[in-house]
Amino acid sequence: MLPDKSPEFALIESFRDQLRAVPGVELGIGDDAAIVEWGSRLGLLAADMLLDGVHFDSSSQSPVEIGRKALAVNLSDVAAMAGVPRFALVSLALPRSASDRLAVSVFEGLKSMANEFDTAIVGGDTTSWNGPFVINVAIVGEVAGERAVKRSGARPGDWLFVTGELGGSLSGRHLTFAPRVREAQTLHQTVELHAMIDVSDGLVADLYHILEESGTGAILNATAIPISAAARHSAADQSPLEKALGDGEDFELLFAVSPEDGAKLVSTNPLEIGLSHIGEITAEPTCLLRTDTGALTPLPRLGWAHALSDPSPD
Amino acid sequence: MLPDKSPEFALIESFRDQLRAVPGVELGIGDDAAIVEWGSRLGLLAADMLLDGVHFDSSSQSPVEIGRKALAVNLSDVAAMAGVPRFALVSLALPRSASDRLAVSVFEGLKSMANEFDTAIVGGDTTSWNGPFVINVAIVGEVAGERAVKRSGARPGDWLFVTGELGGSLSGRHLTFAPRVREAQTLHQTVELHAMIDVSDGLVADLYHILEESGTGAILNATAIPISAAARHSAADQSPLEKALGDGEDFELLFAVSPEDGAKLVSTNPLEIGLSHIGEITAEPTCLLRTDTGALTPLPRLGWAHALSDPSPD
Repeated sequence: MLPDKSPEFALIESFRDQLRAVPGVELGIGDDAAIVEWGSRLGLLAADMLLDGVHFDSSSQSPVEIGRKALAVNLSDVAAMAGVPRFALVSLALPRSASDRLAVSVFEGLKSMANEFDTAIVGGDTTSWNGPFVINVAIVGEVAGERAVKRSGARPGDWLFVTGELGGSLSGRHLTFAPRVREAQTLHQTVELHAMIDVSDGLVADLYHILEESGTGAILNATAIPISAAARHSAADQSPLEKALGDGEDFELLFAVSPEDGAKLVSTNPLEIGLSHIGEITAEPTCLLRTDTGALTPLPRLGWAHALSDPSPD
Repeated sequence: MLPDKSPEFALIESFRDQLRAVPGVELGIGDDAAIVEWGSRLGLLAADMLLDGVHFDSSSQSPVEIGRKALAVNLSDVAAMAGVPRFALVSLALPRSASDRLAVSVFEGLKSMANEFDTAIVGGDTTSWNGPFVINVAIVGEVAGERAVKRSGARPGDWLFVTGELGGSLSGRHLTFAPRVREAQTLHQTVELHAMIDVSDGLVADLYHILEESGTGAILNATAIPISAAARHSAADQSPLEKALGDGEDFELLFAVSPEDGAKLVSTNPLEIGLSHIGEITAEPTCLLRTDTGALTPLPRLGWAHALSDPSPD
């Protein structure tokens, strides 16, 4: 059995169970974005609230970067469903001491990201108060093609892939990362994506979300994990591999496809940012790591624990 | 000319002017909700962020009431466009000391309101932190019929109406009010609504929004303003009329219709909660009050000033 669901997950699950089914909701709480019916189309809905001192540090990070990140994490949620972002709502709680100046700079960051991904900021809410800086972005996306890609569709035998490189994001990339919206579209058009998630909590922690929702297990190959330069060069008490497996906020895409589609991706290599075949989905619901010696060792849910105290936006 | 736009309004206007036009946005920042094209349909998008110590007081108000209000103010935004609410995203920042218990109670309030108005809570975000309690709700609604009702459609000669009674909301009703979703639908089906807004900042302050967006003025009749019992009986240094004109958070509907439709509403009185014909729209862009003696006096932008320091969610 897959171990130790986090307290936040348990809380969200209890909410999910209490909600009355409402027509038009294809997928509610529990994935990167909700899927809703809208006329003959499907929409994607997600929100992330970023808090000063938790998800960013306004004393050392620029408001432009913070605004950029607030929209980027939501774009990443839409990418994880293989969706196309359309509209965003931005809510700001501004410390009274810095409200106007701060708002203008945050808006600069939001605007640059919105323009880059053809997303319209259509409204929101602004208040100043005596508390810390808070920014919430809610995003509305559109399903590309006939269906969205959920966490729940991984099948035994599927190959697991991850885009880009992993680990050490907190040394800077967590503020400047590019959400993988276009890459997700390319993948969605090239192969049949069985399951996908963006790596916000950490590779293994997010893999657990796919395994839980799909009712499967997985084996990852240690030698295949793409380790970023930041993870290789930062001084820390963890190895580069541990950082790549555990660090949050990489915002790369982790996904499962059939072996046939996997082989096609390996041979065509359609993404400029790189793509790594890191493991396989198994029927046995355990999560294992194949080390460089070929030994199989249990892979606990690492990374940011995604408890209520967890700083990672999904 | 209509005087003194608030700092928040100026800031939002500058954002609005900087945004690149994106296809699919019929109406962006500046009304109760944005109007977006979605296939052959129109969607409504709005968000409100409620802050402890600003919009509610968690030391004296119950989390159930706070959760209820957080969704209700958004439902009121959709009502103000004559729309039908569909989906909501809820983001919570929970004080670490009280996180689980608080989340469960807030969710109770959200759920009761969601069920009452057939709105699906489909996702959001939950984090605990060392800051105060923050709740953001983003709502997705649908335009009923062929068009949404904006603030900008009032015409000289139109009659102004308001639903229910006004003033003294802060003595309790601001937490327990019923959003006028069904009443807006009844009105929308009965007459052609030229312009509408929900009274969140105060009757006169919100009337100014209609006048500014419509390029018109108005005359209100003092003797026609429906004053609530709370405004009549609370001890304060303002008169009941001043409270009805100025108090925020009534969440009644203020709207303009042709004189013919106005007469129809007066004679049929289709709403159980009552409907008052309170004045007329004028071509001259001034806002005046006709007192009980028949004298006309300028009506300044009263109510919560809707500055950046303003606690009222729109």
